[in-house]
Amino acid sequence: MLKKVLIANRGEIAVRIIRACRELGISTVSIYSEADKEALHAQLADYSVCVGPNPSKDSYLNVANILSACILTGCDAIHPGFGFLSENPKFAKMCEECNIKFIGPDSETISLMGDKSQARKIMKKANVPVVPGYEDKIDSYEEAYKIAKDIGAPIMIKASSGGGGKGIRIVKDLDEFKHNYEAAKSESMACFGDDRIYIEKYIENPRHIEFQIIADEYGNIIHLGERECSLQKNNQKVLEEAPSTFLNKELREKMGKVAIDAAKAVNYKNVGTIEFLVDKDQKFYFMEMNTRIQVEHPITEMITDVDIVKEQLKIASGIKLSLHQEDIKMQGHAIECRINAKDAGTISELNMPSGLGVRVDSAIYCGYTIPPFYDSMIAKLITYGKDREEAIIKMKRSLGEFAIGGVNTNIDFQYEILEHQDFIDGNYDTSFLNKDVSMAI
Amino acid sequence: MLKKVLIANRGEIAVRIIRACRELGISTVSIYSEADKEALHAQLADYSVCVGPNPSKDSYLNVANILSACILTGCDAIHPGFGFLSENPKFAKMCEECNIKFIGPDSETISLMGDKSQARKIMKKANVPVVPGYEDKIDSYEEAYKIAKDIGAPIMIKASSGGGGKGIRIVKDLDEFKHNYEAAKSESMACFGDDRIYIEKYIENPRHIEFQIIADEYGNIIHLGERECSLQKNNQKVLEEAPSTFLNKELREKMGKVAIDAAKAVNYKNVGTIEFLVDKDQKFYFMEMNTRIQVEHPITEMITDVDIVKEQLKIASGIKLSLHQEDIKMQGHAIECRINAKDAGTISELNMPSGLGVRVDSAIYCGYTIPPFYDSMIAKLITYGKDREEAIIKMKRSLGEFAIGGVNTNIDFQYEILEHQDFIDGNYDTSFLNKDVSMAI
Repeated sequence: MLKKVLIANRGEIAVRIIRACRELGISTVSIYSEADKEALHAQLADYSVCVGPNPSKDSYLNVANILSACILTGCDAIHPGFGFLSENPKFAKMCEECNIKFIGPDSETISLMGDKSQARKIMKKANVPVVPGYEDKIDSYEEAYKIAKDIGAPIMIKASSGGGGKGIRIVKDLDEFKHNYEAAKSESMACFGDDRIYIEKYIENPRHIEFQIIADEYGNIIHLGERECSLQKNNQKVLEEAPSTFLNKELREKMGKVAIDAAKAVNYKNVGTIEFLVDKDQKFYFMEMNTRIQVEHPITEMITDVDIVKEQLKIASGIKLSLHQEDIKMQGHAIECRINAKDAGTISELNMPSGLGVRVDSAIYCGYTIPPFYDSMIAKLITYGKDREEAIIKMKRSLGEFAIGGVNTNIDFQYEILEHQDFIDGNYDTSFLNKDVSMAI
Repeated sequence: MLKKVLIANRGEIAVRIIRACRELGISTVSIYSEADKEALHAQLADYSVCVGPNPSKDSYLNVANILSACILTGCDAIHPGFGFLSENPKFAKMCEECNIKFIGPDSETISLMGDKSQARKIMKKANVPVVPGYEDKIDSYEEAYKIAKDIGAPIMIKASSGGGGKGIRIVKDLDEFKHNYEAAKSESMACFGDDRIYIEKYIENPRHIEFQIIADEYGNIIHLGERECSLQKNNQKVLEEAPSTFLNKELREKMGKVAIDAAKAVNYKNVGTIEFLVDKDQKFYFMEMNTRIQVEHPITEMITDVDIVKEQLKIASGIKLSLHQEDIKMQGHAIECRINAKDAGTISELNMPSGLGVRVDSAIYCGYTIPPFYDSMIAKLITYGKDREEAIIKMKRSLGEFAIGGVNTNIDFQYEILEHQDFIDGNYDTSFLNKDVSMAI
């Protein structure tokens, strides 16, 4: 077993990792920025090291300082959490070169899965369905039109170098292809200095459903079922649940097998997530693989009783996976509401919900000042019920009890979602939170 | 279903009951003493009524004020929690007469089970094993000696009107019976103005093991297995666990059946607990029945996934029990540590543990002032693991995280118990915490 782990993160996920380490008898070292010296993760770890000033680039992304802290405190491994350096193949590579175990897959795998076009190619080769499209260089309008016609409307034109929604055009009728093509190219050039585009099928109002994978270093891979993550606002997940109301047993098994195939195709190690888009007809397409622990991992833990972070630590210690696919029983239903602060400020009053089937993963406490430099998520409220109805009832009860003074939060917004008839009916897709203008966050 | 329930209690159990009501859609009315106007139970309920000054007799035991509050707020039922009026047959009777549903068994059952000598007789008749003894009037020394001889040493001489450990004599050798008999009688007269004594077998270093019963109003009774409650200090339970390491499957089934027989013998309704003493040879004896919810009910909830307080409310609503004995699966292991404050004071800092398998039932918050008038228990920390070892690991991790500033607590003491080899081995009985002088609470 690993002996001492540096946690290269902050907030609730750092606390979550400290808990898992402690239960496995592993010593912990926290890193913190100047703004975070009073943060819970810095207080709870066995040792804490300040790695730089407030901006992330100077502290939580400060590779030199983090690696120095790791070596100086005698850690044998780094847990990157999510965000920050968790999917940075260069950092993972440097860890490998320093003989520090990076708790995640190989740097090569991170690199492959980070390149979306390369990931598509690998998945196609492994017979993992991807959104129909054309990822190679397109030389002319004529060629582009032919590709678009082959795929069939609706299609999406995307900037090859794009990101953040820029350079994306949706074409529902090919008669409108030409001006969208030209607009996408010039927007792409203007934004990214590169007018290369690629074309793929536009999946209308899909579900975002992801599968949790656990793979050890000896080729054993299992999945822990899916998470329904379609409730997103500005591409940020807001509320997740497991299982998805949209999958039946047959589709779950099929997608689970495909998720394992996808992980096998890149010789995947440690835990990861295969994200799929699922269309109205339950056709599913590989979207991307997240090569790290996810924010929403607790809902899977609640229905499978598998501690996913402990599994990460055990796998990174070189321990063989003790779970087999047939051991994994999904029981009941779990929901996670991400509790976000709308502003920085000091928490003047705090009451967290509790009780049977209620879990709060957070790093806040009464008197804690939320710094303005980092992510706005301050807690994850997770409820478990024998069925979906009970999980919803428990979530509403718990949101009602959750009292946070001194900062504004999205608690009321989460409550509104839970009361929405379409949510109650399980009838929603990724467009739900964007189209429903009555919900003001 | 009941519509509006008055909760005649305070602290964590009042909060616990509010949670269950809320999840069932029942409105709640809290009562509070003047000292408790800032208490969480008063803040969380839908309505709150002050029922009197600080001393319990003027507020939480103030029957007239509580019944008035109930009627004035239009409640159809009272949940008494534990302690206070929960086992007061007169109060239950008054509720019945006022047409207010007392959430518990009939006043008659409470009365029968409250009279220890009568309870013994009923249980004997129902073939429930009781500690061998003689509960009727003893007229002379000669008669007493004969009874003692029939029972066989060791025996216990107890004051019939006794309590608080006064007037109790343990006789390990009958040669020493005479002076103990006389001492018990004179001590009893001095303390209680009554020299009647009774004699029973002395069970040496027993286990205290109790069975949770659920009975509806239509004669359906099930049990939810046992709780091991042998860790007591001054007759106060300190740490409980379920299941007990001392019972095997066969004994569990046998005791469970006897517990159901005991409940049936008094036509029991709602939830209750049959407390047994179990000797070294796994012989068990009925000790008493608690006709209310117990402090330690959450450990049973964790291993059975049955919400016991919700069951109370459903039964009191006249709903038929939907659970059958064969549905009850005990999975994993749960431990509860009672967190007590050693003094009154204001909680200046607070961090409660959380995470997979961790539950805190409490009514404290940062800034809350613990009043000096009531019970010292401020929180119950409950952990669940796949097995006992995991539950212990989680408890140690959680105790380590539990930070309470401003008042002294028994958190360190609980930690010491968890580290004690005999506890780890499951090798303990009711004498454990009393004899181990190295443990200073």
